[in-house]
Amino acid sequence: MSDTPDLLEQQDNIPDDGLATENPLLSALDLTNDDEFRIRLEGLHPADFSDFLEELNDAQREVLVMRAPALITGELLAELEDDVVEDVLPLLEPELIADALNELDSDDVTQIMEEMEAGQREDVLEAMEPLERAGVEASLAFDDETIGRLMQREFVSAPEFWTVGDTIDHMRDAGEDLPELFFNIYIVDPRLKPIGYVPVSKLMRAPRDTTLASLMDLKVFTIAQDVDQEEAAYLFEKYHLISAPVVDTQGRMVGMMTVDDILDIIQDENKEDFLALAGVSDAGITDTAFSTVRARAPWLLVNLGTAILASIVIARFDYAIEQIVALAVLMPIVASMGGNAGTQALTVAVRGLAERDLTKATAWRAVRREGVSAMIIGIIFAFALAGISFVWFGDAKLAGVAFVAMIINHTFAGLAGILIPLGLKRAGADPAVSSSVFVTTVTDVVGFAAFLGFAAAVLL
Amino acid sequence: MSDTPDLLEQQDNIPDDGLATENPLLSALDLTNDDEFRIRLEGLHPADFSDFLEELNDAQREVLVMRAPALITGELLAELEDDVVEDVLPLLEPELIADALNELDSDDVTQIMEEMEAGQREDVLEAMEPLERAGVEASLAFDDETIGRLMQREFVSAPEFWTVGDTIDHMRDAGEDLPELFFNIYIVDPRLKPIGYVPVSKLMRAPRDTTLASLMDLKVFTIAQDVDQEEAAYLFEKYHLISAPVVDTQGRMVGMMTVDDILDIIQDENKEDFLALAGVSDAGITDTAFSTVRARAPWLLVNLGTAILASIVIARFDYAIEQIVALAVLMPIVASMGGNAGTQALTVAVRGLAERDLTKATAWRAVRREGVSAMIIGIIFAFALAGISFVWFGDAKLAGVAFVAMIINHTFAGLAGILIPLGLKRAGADPAVSSSVFVTTVTDVVGFAAFLGFAAAVLL
Repeated sequence: MSDTPDLLEQQDNIPDDGLATENPLLSALDLTNDDEFRIRLEGLHPADFSDFLEELNDAQREVLVMRAPALITGELLAELEDDVVEDVLPLLEPELIADALNELDSDDVTQIMEEMEAGQREDVLEAMEPLERAGVEASLAFDDETIGRLMQREFVSAPEFWTVGDTIDHMRDAGEDLPELFFNIYIVDPRLKPIGYVPVSKLMRAPRDTTLASLMDLKVFTIAQDVDQEEAAYLFEKYHLISAPVVDTQGRMVGMMTVDDILDIIQDENKEDFLALAGVSDAGITDTAFSTVRARAPWLLVNLGTAILASIVIARFDYAIEQIVALAVLMPIVASMGGNAGTQALTVAVRGLAERDLTKATAWRAVRREGVSAMIIGIIFAFALAGISFVWFGDAKLAGVAFVAMIINHTFAGLAGILIPLGLKRAGADPAVSSSVFVTTVTDVVGFAAFLGFAAAVLL
Repeated sequence: MSDTPDLLEQQDNIPDDGLATENPLLSALDLTNDDEFRIRLEGLHPADFSDFLEELNDAQREVLVMRAPALITGELLAELEDDVVEDVLPLLEPELIADALNELDSDDVTQIMEEMEAGQREDVLEAMEPLERAGVEASLAFDDETIGRLMQREFVSAPEFWTVGDTIDHMRDAGEDLPELFFNIYIVDPRLKPIGYVPVSKLMRAPRDTTLASLMDLKVFTIAQDVDQEEAAYLFEKYHLISAPVVDTQGRMVGMMTVDDILDIIQDENKEDFLALAGVSDAGITDTAFSTVRARAPWLLVNLGTAILASIVIARFDYAIEQIVALAVLMPIVASMGGNAGTQALTVAVRGLAERDLTKATAWRAVRREGVSAMIIGIIFAFALAGISFVWFGDAKLAGVAFVAMIINHTFAGLAGILIPLGLKRAGADPAVSSSVFVTTVTDVVGFAAFLGFAAAVLL
């Protein structure tokens, strides 16, 4: 049973803090005997091997790949993060890559080919079998992040008049050309349009002479090949699909998506939204300081612009600050509270849009809820800040100004937090990417203007 | 073929802005004839029906459920968001609920029972068949978010000496007791410990007299029933699993997890992290203004505390601001830039920890990268702010102060952004929930102190 990894045993290796233990590739690199070196690494699961390989630095990774290029199997390449694949591929011979890709389903092949330099890609395509090559070229012709690019071209389909016996015999003969794993048999009409499906677990239990027509479920969700990956992921999630047929513009079945690939898409989309909200355009395991700067500086530049806008508002009231320096002490509190409240509302709205909970039908209810709760929160913290101001500076009028400014800024923050992402979505922009700038600009400008403006009017 | 919904057709109903079209439940509610009313709604897919039901307000939903309780099927309940289930259940008779649950796999039943009031739960359990009841009670005995609570108790297992024919015959006989869908047959030893698996698509293609032992894959990943859902989701994602056996403390197989349920878990965990980073404890489709305030006020209270801390720093230098009011104009820029840079670093770190890219082995590299890139970014924007300050206020010394303060604050922001989540993770806290407070406190306090402190030293 030593071949049976299990989570209980595995947990001994992964301490509670989630940080992994020593990397076996590092100790293997010290071995001088090439055979020992290879034997040490051959037993690793591709998913573990890829994790360890990702942890090495560029130089270590290069030494390892050069010493034992045969260890870089197709399965390993399919497991590696895109940016690591990009680093490893140039170290390998085209023929070796073509061989490694031969064992994979077409969706994994396409994904790896994407990371190749144009020149190497040509050489690898040259080394492939003509049929496989044609499939890869067809996939690469589709846009990035569309289903045509991501689907696998291997699937099992059958006409509805076939019996269970026919289908099983057909599959026994087909052998190599079938997908590595599949869960549904798709029933297609004479024009190859999917009209139903039979789960494999159902087919297997039926007598051999049953026709597929009598077994099939008619509710088959098909995906057009030019559809965006996010759209397809939503369909899988909503209808709990395990696999779905992909069709061309004539409605003919040309491929299949399976839920394990959808899981990767969902994680990619989540990561994108997560980072976008903080103004980070990209982050990966091999990032250098330089690529980090490039991924973060643009949003900081925009933030510099909005911060200057807020400063201009402050400068308009410099005469008030000169006379009452307490204003300079308290104004960042008003702005900071509004900024945080706005970010809360914005985050809930962006998530609601991504999950499609926030729809045309529920938008009005959500706006009303944000408005009302922002006012309640504003009143609560207005009392808090007014109390603190009064105790600190002993000035009832100043406390009153803080009170009013807090309510105004919170109300604006809450409404901006929902209306701005809704508006951007409607205008066709990605609310996760661009909302933050607008919301913090509103909360900064309104916060400073309300507080200093009231102060100038009431206190001077 | 009108029974074949497809994404192409569906896209006509979902405009590009992702906002859904008119809700058919609303127009159905206007029908006075109860039969017409029922017929109108019966054809809806449970996933669509649940979406529409979620869009109604509480009063509309109650009218609909009271008029046609028979429409509330088990499948519909399984599709609804938890907080909507919680609202709908009290409107239904225990016997009707027990009937509805009867059609579901045990994992869905448990999930629905969780949302019931204790009294109703007793009544529904009473109305269930004894065997099903025992299963539900066993599941509910496990902690929330553990696999024992989430797994399904229906699965297919077989001893290794069985042939393909034995297995298929067994499944034909078992009928109702099998899971609705399954993808793997688990091979168990005489003590019921899983020792391998055979994908259904492989079993079906093999001759009837082949033994399972010769077909099975030995790399079976088992999950302990007391493991947290996040741990299980990670296993599925990393090893691209479609289903996995769940074992009790003696290693006996007691249930199964499938990838479609894992997808829901991953989305829940993503949502939790996403909201936590903005300081929102919970958000749902039925939120009222009151529950919104409750979910957001605690973090705003903490933020009020840290904002006051920053204000105290400002107050320490009030004499400098009194003399040079330009300091009050520029200081929010320094703080805001640092705050945003810190949030960027923090977001990347929290995501890296969640995806387990950021491990003990890569932590040092990440810290170094954040430190270096923070300094580079600091220098870039120090030049920008110094230039702006000089043009605006014509004071070279003031520009110099801004220059130095920006570099210091950015460097602190970058390091705090990575070291604080790493430290919290190591201390066993959830870095997504608590990091933000610490990071913004650091950037505010350091930002104001560096800028005003230098100004007081150099300019006065």
